[in-house]
Amino acid sequence: MEKPTTTEALVREILDRIADKWTLVVIEELGSGGEMRFTELRDRIGGVSQKMLTKTLRQMERDGLATRHVHAVVPPRVDYKLTPLGESLGEAACGIWLWAEKHLGDVTSARQAFDRRPK
Amino acid sequence: MEKPTTTEALVREILDRIADKWTLVVIEELGSGGEMRFTELRDRIGGVSQKMLTKTLRQMERDGLATRHVHAVVPPRVDYKLTPLGESLGEAACGIWLWAEKHLGDVTSARQAFDRRPK
Repeated sequence: MEKPTTTEALVREILDRIADKWTLVVIEELGSGGEMRFTELRDRIGGVSQKMLTKTLRQMERDGLATRHVHAVVPPRVDYKLTPLGESLGEAACGIWLWAEKHLGDVTSARQAFDRRPK
Repeated sequence: MEKPTTTEALVREILDRIADKWTLVVIEELGSGGEMRFTELRDRIGGVSQKMLTKTLRQMERDGLATRHVHAVVPPRVDYKLTPLGESLGEAACGIWLWAEKHLGDVTSARQAFDRRPK
């Protein structure tokens, strides 16, 4: 049965957001490390700019995937953690991570073969 | 145990490519519909530009996820189908689709609540 167009469009829009490299990486880090500070998260991820991580976390907060907790201390401390919804997405996304790890070599070989083909 | 940095970086790069809305949509369509022509695929997907679909299919071909078959007929006919590697990615990605369909309402509600919060 065809899915209604609206649902299909919404699912795609959500996919577009969540099936994003940084969202999946943040979900993995917060999923394995639990609640943590922005700076710790940034250090664990590596290779992500402050701006991109801020943007990713804000979108995740808006989508209900993570919560942001500002502690009333000096200097202020901000922690992030996954919501149950974020955790459920982590479980759903696990298959993609495992696939990527398992098939890294296949993809790399396929690319090399493709690039060697006569143009 | 920490994964070696190179593997981690490669897995992320692959994620970046495959965890792409159009790649996942194409995999779903080719997975459910089997081998099909470019035009049929474009019509089934809807909302994708010719340029973006061409780019997505070319990347999928390079990554070993799909094959392109040019039939020697006039006018030329080009079919695409998933490779076993592409099929395996479709299975791995299934959890993400199901999650998005199941939690559409949760994400929508979270966004509304976030947008109503005092700034």
